[in-house]
Amino acid sequence: MNTAEHALLTEVFPHDARRDPRGVLVLGGAPVDQLIDEHGTPLYVFDEATLRAQCRAYAQPLVHEYPNSLALYASKAHLDPTIAGIVAAEGLGADAVSSGEIRVALAGGMPADRIVFHGNNKLPEEIEYALDVGVGRIVVDSLDELDLIAEIATERGGQPAPVILRITPGVEAHTHEYIRTGAIDSKFGLQLHSGAAEEAVAQAQAADSIDLTGLHAHIGSQVLDVEPYADSLDIVLDFADTMSERHGLVLRDISPGGGFGVSYSEADDPPAAGSFVEVIAETLRARRLESEPRLLIEPGRSIVARAGVALYRVGTIKEIPGVRTYVSVDGGMADNIRPALYGAQYRALIANRMPDGAEQLVTVAGRYCESGDVLLRDIELPALRRGDVLAVPAAGAYHMSMASNYNLVGRPATVLVRNGKALVTRPRETDADLMAAFAPVET
Amino acid sequence: MNTAEHALLTEVFPHDARRDPRGVLVLGGAPVDQLIDEHGTPLYVFDEATLRAQCRAYAQPLVHEYPNSLALYASKAHLDPTIAGIVAAEGLGADAVSSGEIRVALAGGMPADRIVFHGNNKLPEEIEYALDVGVGRIVVDSLDELDLIAEIATERGGQPAPVILRITPGVEAHTHEYIRTGAIDSKFGLQLHSGAAEEAVAQAQAADSIDLTGLHAHIGSQVLDVEPYADSLDIVLDFADTMSERHGLVLRDISPGGGFGVSYSEADDPPAAGSFVEVIAETLRARRLESEPRLLIEPGRSIVARAGVALYRVGTIKEIPGVRTYVSVDGGMADNIRPALYGAQYRALIANRMPDGAEQLVTVAGRYCESGDVLLRDIELPALRRGDVLAVPAAGAYHMSMASNYNLVGRPATVLVRNGKALVTRPRETDADLMAAFAPVET
Repeated sequence: MNTAEHALLTEVFPHDARRDPRGVLVLGGAPVDQLIDEHGTPLYVFDEATLRAQCRAYAQPLVHEYPNSLALYASKAHLDPTIAGIVAAEGLGADAVSSGEIRVALAGGMPADRIVFHGNNKLPEEIEYALDVGVGRIVVDSLDELDLIAEIATERGGQPAPVILRITPGVEAHTHEYIRTGAIDSKFGLQLHSGAAEEAVAQAQAADSIDLTGLHAHIGSQVLDVEPYADSLDIVLDFADTMSERHGLVLRDISPGGGFGVSYSEADDPPAAGSFVEVIAETLRARRLESEPRLLIEPGRSIVARAGVALYRVGTIKEIPGVRTYVSVDGGMADNIRPALYGAQYRALIANRMPDGAEQLVTVAGRYCESGDVLLRDIELPALRRGDVLAVPAAGAYHMSMASNYNLVGRPATVLVRNGKALVTRPRETDADLMAAFAPVET
Repeated sequence: MNTAEHALLTEVFPHDARRDPRGVLVLGGAPVDQLIDEHGTPLYVFDEATLRAQCRAYAQPLVHEYPNSLALYASKAHLDPTIAGIVAAEGLGADAVSSGEIRVALAGGMPADRIVFHGNNKLPEEIEYALDVGVGRIVVDSLDELDLIAEIATERGGQPAPVILRITPGVEAHTHEYIRTGAIDSKFGLQLHSGAAEEAVAQAQAADSIDLTGLHAHIGSQVLDVEPYADSLDIVLDFADTMSERHGLVLRDISPGGGFGVSYSEADDPPAAGSFVEVIAETLRARRLESEPRLLIEPGRSIVARAGVALYRVGTIKEIPGVRTYVSVDGGMADNIRPALYGAQYRALIANRMPDGAEQLVTVAGRYCESGDVLLRDIELPALRRGDVLAVPAAGAYHMSMASNYNLVGRPATVLVRNGKALVTRPRETDADLMAAFAPVET
């Protein structure tokens, strides 16, 4: 095993990933050759121990640094009922961005009052559903939506709707343009500089059907610095002070959002979960607030990305002399759109046997009928043969959650591994499943 | 109605799209307010008349220009059993790139011998399935795959597998980088310059289990010029001549692929279907071949794009003074990934009423929890209100076929309209459908 592979296995793959004496990759105690014999490829393997460890990586420093807090798992990164249950058992809550995510979180055993409902355009029926099941908070994204929630809550009667206002602080995180959300030109949030945020506070405080509990801000995704969180939080806390004076706001909840970055390669070096928590807690404590608000943080990717590994079977190998060698696998852009959509770069290991021979520069292409369906461009891998298995780490977030049936190919199965056992959490979609989604042909 | 709207309605929307006296958009004789009352939003509406007209736009010039021919509908653009049936009834065949596409085409009534099976990495079980159901041709993409097909066909016994070789001619079409496929650095096809193409001809001619019927090349997608097709075809025909001399190849099938461009806006001006056919047929006839091969052309997008319209409901409207006004709709990147993935630009019309008031520059954002989820950036639209309906034309290709359940939101319904009646071709996915895709939680 060379140094790069060692670093990849210990820093990017799930905890305790290793090769067994045959050279076969072992995840959660389960050798991948057994996993794919039973469940086929492509296969998404989630390691329960890594998932739990990542939950604790946030929960434990929070207990020390700021006990009046709740870490919310950002469901959009990846949600299934089993994972929702594990996250809930670790004491976390959940961010949800649709009635579907709320429903799946509840089905997994997530307590409703630990669910926070986000989104820039919640549908009226979704707001009703959220109030019906009693989610903990609804994060209001616009003045327009505040009106809508107030109207729905008034019609329903009963308890006022517990809401948090999403503020756009004007802080930009250094990340891919598509996932930058703290800047002023964003579809998300209530602008500070335009006065929309203050108007929302005033309206919320005046509305009988609204219980305004606090403020939220989010600066982006896959953020690799801690400072922007302190800056953003300071801006929001300054705003809260002003709102307290002007509109009697009592800050019971405060959230600097999430977006904490993860490693996609052994060369990445994101801050530890504890570093994010520490900076955020320090910033809050430094204000010496009379009444300490509850801190809500929202890690998603950083909890689940590392827990997931994508396993692909190698098919066609095509050498174009002087140009490039293409290795095709049986998955691609339909299960992982991130390389095509964001230019995301991944690493991979040969997973079914000990690597042997000199490494070669190859490009790993997907099976989908599109030239842009390339998973890994120019990666060094040992000589591969048809039938080999490639393992792509850091595949737990924004792969299956964004997966499509492009080319009418069923989506991969997902399994959860623990102590050498694999539990199917989502069965593989078959061609028959795809047919069943269509209406029968009228004759 | 202003000039731009008139051009959009008559050139980009389906045939006979118009506003009724109330100002409501009418598609295939059905007013969209009735369609969404019955089927909800987001809704994908396919106009049968446009679909049939586009099929005939290829079939009719082929009859005149080159009767020994078959237009193959490229299923990956959009396939459901109903549309497969219509396309088959119009006399077309189908390109398929997976066992799922073959299955859906067959279910719609497409004759198996009119199906051509493509792909850079066909799985062994897919090749077996294709041979089982008796597809017309398998397009071989690599030497590796030729071996695999020969092996599978030998094991099965019986008729040799009818194959076409996909040649990479080295012609680049002027299009988006991701969908350029004729160039030398491509995961698709057998390179001419490396000798791989000739080696494949020699091997195929020598293999008892292979019946080599011809050659194929594909130069890209959304191609807006006719010349590259002539250039590419000439290269492939020169190669066929050489292969005839050296390896006794009898050219029975020839295909210059597809990828013919369409209008996404009234400013686009792609060549007519007939122009592509004419240039291709002329190029072929100019060779004065002793035995005329069958011509296979592969329009997909250009048959179905214009037939489809996406209908969205307007939700949150957010004005950021001096920056931008965001109008959020109830769909977005999960049903149309093209703006985020390819930078594709669309137009839109207000569909539920007569446009009134001055136009405003707005950005139409989707509902998905991601800053990059923007459908139309900086578009002039009349003042919109919550509840308005936006219609996005040229939505028939590569929208629903690439749709995901991102944010755990069900995919939109699709309907086919004809003579004022709407037939549901794919029911809307519900939250319950999404739940059913997961395995039950083990307790």
